[in-house]
Amino acid sequence: MRALLPLLRSAWGGRTGALVVRLREGAAAGPGPRRAMASYRTEERGQPHSPGYRLFFKNEAGHYISPFHDIPLKVESKEENGIPTKRARNDESENLFNMVVEVPRWTNAKMEIATEEPLNPIKQDVKDGKLRYVANIFPHKGYIWNYGALPQTWEDPHRNDKSTDCCGDNDPIDVCEIGSKVGCSNGTLCFLPPSAPRSIRNEFLFLTKSLLVSSLTDIDDVRKYKPGYLEATLNWFRFYKVPEGKPENHFAFNGEFKNKAFALEVIKSTHECWKALLMKQCDGGAISCTNVQICDSPYHCAQEKARSLVESVSSSISKGSHEEEQVWHFLGK
Amino acid sequence: MRALLPLLRSAWGGRTGALVVRLREGAAAGPGPRRAMASYRTEERGQPHSPGYRLFFKNEAGHYISPFHDIPLKVESKEENGIPTKRARNDESENLFNMVVEVPRWTNAKMEIATEEPLNPIKQDVKDGKLRYVANIFPHKGYIWNYGALPQTWEDPHRNDKSTDCCGDNDPIDVCEIGSKVGCSNGTLCFLPPSAPRSIRNEFLFLTKSLLVSSLTDIDDVRKYKPGYLEATLNWFRFYKVPEGKPENHFAFNGEFKNKAFALEVIKSTHECWKALLMKQCDGGAISCTNVQICDSPYHCAQEKARSLVESVSSSISKGSHEEEQVWHFLGK
Repeated sequence: MRALLPLLRSAWGGRTGALVVRLREGAAAGPGPRRAMASYRTEERGQPHSPGYRLFFKNEAGHYISPFHDIPLKVESKEENGIPTKRARNDESENLFNMVVEVPRWTNAKMEIATEEPLNPIKQDVKDGKLRYVANIFPHKGYIWNYGALPQTWEDPHRNDKSTDCCGDNDPIDVCEIGSKVGCSNGTLCFLPPSAPRSIRNEFLFLTKSLLVSSLTDIDDVRKYKPGYLEATLNWFRFYKVPEGKPENHFAFNGEFKNKAFALEVIKSTHECWKALLMKQCDGGAISCTNVQICDSPYHCAQEKARSLVESVSSSISKGSHEEEQVWHFLGK
Repeated sequence: MRALLPLLRSAWGGRTGALVVRLREGAAAGPGPRRAMASYRTEERGQPHSPGYRLFFKNEAGHYISPFHDIPLKVESKEENGIPTKRARNDESENLFNMVVEVPRWTNAKMEIATEEPLNPIKQDVKDGKLRYVANIFPHKGYIWNYGALPQTWEDPHRNDKSTDCCGDNDPIDVCEIGSKVGCSNGTLCFLPPSAPRSIRNEFLFLTKSLLVSSLTDIDDVRKYKPGYLEATLNWFRFYKVPEGKPENHFAFNGEFKNKAFALEVIKSTHECWKALLMKQCDGGAISCTNVQICDSPYHCAQEKARSLVESVSSSISKGSHEEEQVWHFLGK
């Protein structure tokens, strides 16, 4: 059996940088089944950097899909000619996940999957009537990883997590992709912003690894091969709301990073929560579960319906930018 | 007399981000002569991220100019209606300089004034047949200031600088603009890369200050209001060539930052060197001194000639990018 190697596969979708990344452990090259990548495309509606902007996803066949519900969590094994193969014997080598990158590294606009809108396009977060941008906190420029979510996962707000004693944040789980263009899940950071007791979030941030460093197999290798990155990650989340006048964030586990095994457990349990959500076995509140691929879900809809949902959204396109993207904030003075 | 305040005035020229910034000390608002900003435009020739790319400058009248020779070092006082006023009595308040930003903050392409080409357009540096990009060294993204040059200055390679015992680097002096969009010269860093004894460089890097921090008047205020920025600047120059396999850079003055008075002296003396260059009073080697504004210079040329020089350069335009812009290098592992 070959040593576990990280593999990076990614496809940029659209100018705003929505990205589906494959997070994998397994043979990067050499013997073993190859994985043909399903390609996703994106389509912009409305004006970027405006509240009405939406980025929709399409599958290989050109059909509109929900990136939250219709992109599989696990990348399916299939030969390059498209014929599915049997599952690998060792489940450990099957940890190949899709990720939806909402915010590309070094950008500022707080883009996110619109969980409450049909087909869950990506939109820019709006607070108090203003588009949200994360501040540049010296020495960093914008987000310091590709930031996004694992599809087909859901943190159930009615479910209390044993390890943190917190409820879910009602979103798919968040991922920090730390490879150059690709990566593999191998670590978890859990943090609890202190600002709003009623909406305490329980975000699991998965750090992913780089193709460039073939010996990166768990969280300790990140320390070894990317010195300073974990500390910068912790500080980034600690301070990122301070320029808005908010207090520092605090973390579960005393800010300790958890390992790959822990991360895989979180992925597994939140995937089960998502299944229950889609099968209407639990209360999803305002979440839109409209999907085109989960045929046994009561929220399944036909392609024609999906198309009409998308076409009801304005499609004028132009580019803007925001002052907050230019400014560097110096803390600790 | 009002306390000295920094003032930022800037004008972006062209998509690649060439920028003329005014570096000023004096009343930012309130009584005193206002300064009408001469506006410069840029025109792209050739394909960006290709060796043939050139960015030419035009003045307000739409005539091609040299950003090296034809943009005045000092911003001229004039009323807003365009009629020049008398010089302010206090020279100290006259430290308002133009700066040509060759590399916008957070970008990677090593853009520079082509000192040996007629009208000195901005081009991307090429070494060993490859376009040059600075590496992203964690935690930084690209250049960490607006980086560029003071027009109408020249470091004479035949002239030995007393304070560093080094000869000039044959370029205009370099500036690091540390404001959000504007700044004022207030500090100097001198460094000596150890790599090539025959071409030891004697670069004076002027740190500029922000409109946002009205009490920033000299180098110590940078320490106070932008904590970590000077140290990051020193480390940036120390390590930026390491990813290319080169050794760390070393600095004159043990890496100590010099103050505003020192910086002003350097600007003054290099401006005198530039004058001698343009008047053919010293050996400029391969430097192109072609200009359209310095009428008593033997290198002065007519507008028609300038236009024909520009029009001989290819003008196809498209955008590219480079892998090195995406990768983060982690040192010290």
